[in-house]
Amino acid sequence: MLNFIEKTMSLIVQKYGGTSVGDPIRIKAVAERIKSTVDAGNQVVVVVSARSGVTNDLIARAKALTPTPDEREMDSLLVAGEQETIALTAIALHAIGQKAVSRTGAGAGIKTDFAHTKARIVEITGGDIKNLLDDGNVVIVAGFQGVNANGDITTLGRGGSDLSAVALAAALKADICQIYTDVDGIYTADPRVVSTARKINEMAYDELLELASSGSKVMQARSVEFARKHNVIFEVRSSFNNEPGTIVKTEVSTMENIVVSGVAVDKNQMKITLVQLPDEPGVAATVFAVLGKAGVTVDMIVQNVGRAGKANLTFTVSKDDSAKAKEVLEKASKELGGATVESMTEIAKVSAVGIGMRSHSGIAASFFGALARAGINIELITTSEIKISVGIALARADEAVNVLHQAFDLDKK
Amino acid sequence: MLNFIEKTMSLIVQKYGGTSVGDPIRIKAVAERIKSTVDAGNQVVVVVSARSGVTNDLIARAKALTPTPDEREMDSLLVAGEQETIALTAIALHAIGQKAVSRTGAGAGIKTDFAHTKARIVEITGGDIKNLLDDGNVVIVAGFQGVNANGDITTLGRGGSDLSAVALAAALKADICQIYTDVDGIYTADPRVVSTARKINEMAYDELLELASSGSKVMQARSVEFARKHNVIFEVRSSFNNEPGTIVKTEVSTMENIVVSGVAVDKNQMKITLVQLPDEPGVAATVFAVLGKAGVTVDMIVQNVGRAGKANLTFTVSKDDSAKAKEVLEKASKELGGATVESMTEIAKVSAVGIGMRSHSGIAASFFGALARAGINIELITTSEIKISVGIALARADEAVNVLHQAFDLDKK
Repeated sequence: MLNFIEKTMSLIVQKYGGTSVGDPIRIKAVAERIKSTVDAGNQVVVVVSARSGVTNDLIARAKALTPTPDEREMDSLLVAGEQETIALTAIALHAIGQKAVSRTGAGAGIKTDFAHTKARIVEITGGDIKNLLDDGNVVIVAGFQGVNANGDITTLGRGGSDLSAVALAAALKADICQIYTDVDGIYTADPRVVSTARKINEMAYDELLELASSGSKVMQARSVEFARKHNVIFEVRSSFNNEPGTIVKTEVSTMENIVVSGVAVDKNQMKITLVQLPDEPGVAATVFAVLGKAGVTVDMIVQNVGRAGKANLTFTVSKDDSAKAKEVLEKASKELGGATVESMTEIAKVSAVGIGMRSHSGIAASFFGALARAGINIELITTSEIKISVGIALARADEAVNVLHQAFDLDKK
Repeated sequence: MLNFIEKTMSLIVQKYGGTSVGDPIRIKAVAERIKSTVDAGNQVVVVVSARSGVTNDLIARAKALTPTPDEREMDSLLVAGEQETIALTAIALHAIGQKAVSRTGAGAGIKTDFAHTKARIVEITGGDIKNLLDDGNVVIVAGFQGVNANGDITTLGRGGSDLSAVALAAALKADICQIYTDVDGIYTADPRVVSTARKINEMAYDELLELASSGSKVMQARSVEFARKHNVIFEVRSSFNNEPGTIVKTEVSTMENIVVSGVAVDKNQMKITLVQLPDEPGVAATVFAVLGKAGVTVDMIVQNVGRAGKANLTFTVSKDDSAKAKEVLEKASKELGGATVESMTEIAKVSAVGIGMRSHSGIAASFFGALARAGINIELITTSEIKISVGIALARADEAVNVLHQAFDLDKK
């Protein structure tokens, strides 16, 4: 049933997200899956998130007290969610006759730095996990949390439970880290947009990273980067069925036969055009320094030289950051030779990602040809070694994804 | 405003129950009260419970998985409730400019034995609380929880947060322990039953213990016993107003002028009559041994010798235990010479409590005289040095409480 694990005895880290432990019925299903993995002869460490909604509820309770809650206490607050699910998961395992013990992040020896609410893992000792496993236990570890050198509880920020799982897998030298979620795996495109989208069986860390930065929301880049750095093979799969998911690992040669692995879209971008910039060296650098200081990340960039020694600069930022970007640019107008924000337009970024691009030519031609034939106008372009992204009108985003999905034969096995 | 604490700089432990931290508005009110206590020049340690309903919700989630959840994991589960409220209380204090730090039971050095879900406190080190206080912090401690010598989280059972507060007050040598709840203090009778009931200003530990065993639900006997043993003065008062509450302490001479402090009623009693018992020495002992082994506590007892060498035995147990009592007695019928349970009737136990009874005569005469004049029939009687209790028909319980309240002039200052 669990394809990967029947072949041989392994140490497996399984991570279950908030929807997978959302109610007693789901928790029982999770317990059954864990037990069947143990019954197949494996040792299992489980990382669980808080129930869906609990973390947001706790944040809302704190924000009802003050808009700027103390971060140390926020961490102390937020871990309550996982404290609940580790215990319930252990109880569910006991109920079906499986030995199990729960451990907090601190109990699992997940040591972090001092950055409350967004701590970075500095070391994982694993605590007594190895002994507990050898004693026949499943060990349930609270995701998203750790402890700093002062003994204070910390949390790892968004996507933290995935990171806990991948990092534990690295520390314990697990054979695989299975990320159970509410989707079947990683798809060639969003199935809600492209009806012929297929699940990808295998992909490289770099591809998933590019997809993540292109709007695919399956996993935070941070966990993927950690996995890549420590060479942790992981699988993204559904806790709602027994289908194999998508295995993510270091590039293997067969991967290169697939030129483009997936097409992604990010509809949360704002295109900002600055006009009346002095056409002098260093001006663009000043613009991006101003934005960087305000914590605004710039994505795609186009610069046009205008007339009379003035230039225009067009770039995209996340829609969430756009108001702040406008504010700091207007404040810096003098410094920027009187430049002004001429327009802010919502756009979509559409990307094709594939590790095979490195060794195949003509990908760009196929990409732009497909969009041209569909009459979709391209406003900005950015590329990496394994990705091509374009900014286009938001209204045509889904169409563009479908056109590209077809152009690269992603609907075909 | 806070009568006790304005006079002198003190170390005060304040405990807030579940209704007092039930929502952001209530938590803000708690924070204001704590801050005003600090502003009056005191050091404050705060013990909080889980929000009302949270602990029961967590128990329900576990019971949805299995009727008999593992107790170690239950403890790990239940502490999530206080984990939330300590953090929120600290956040609320920061929001009004008061330094505050939260600590779990383990963090406060509350060491317990190994009895999960009903652990007993064996030691309180206080952790770094003293230093934190000296550094200007309010320290918020999670009630109801501790840690055993294995490092496993434990909980203290029902009323555990009161116990945490009283025990911390003892360990820290606090000047007073204030128990904030949703009632104004301890009354001469239940104000819902007796309209002229008054709040008692001061009472002895023993009086409160007798009231607790007589159906008054303000505090668990366990916490009162701990306070008595360690001589912790505590005050039961409301978190919804600024009125002084009831101070509970070792007996002082002025207390003896008040002969009866309060009248209590317990409507949760079942009277059981066993008939056809052999009229032999040791039979009653066997009955109570059978019940004791089943964990059933017997309260009031009356034995009548019948005819033909047979006796009747009447006693009361908590209504919750009555089915179990019947079951074990029927099983033991042979051992008891063929005795059978003749009847089970719901009754009320009405009690008058007062430390002054010890040195005043005629209390019993007043007590029984008042009930006789009202025509209330007495079915069972039990007395202690400072209490008289009677079992009467449930339907006349409220009337009896009023009659006694008046007979002992409890409506008069």
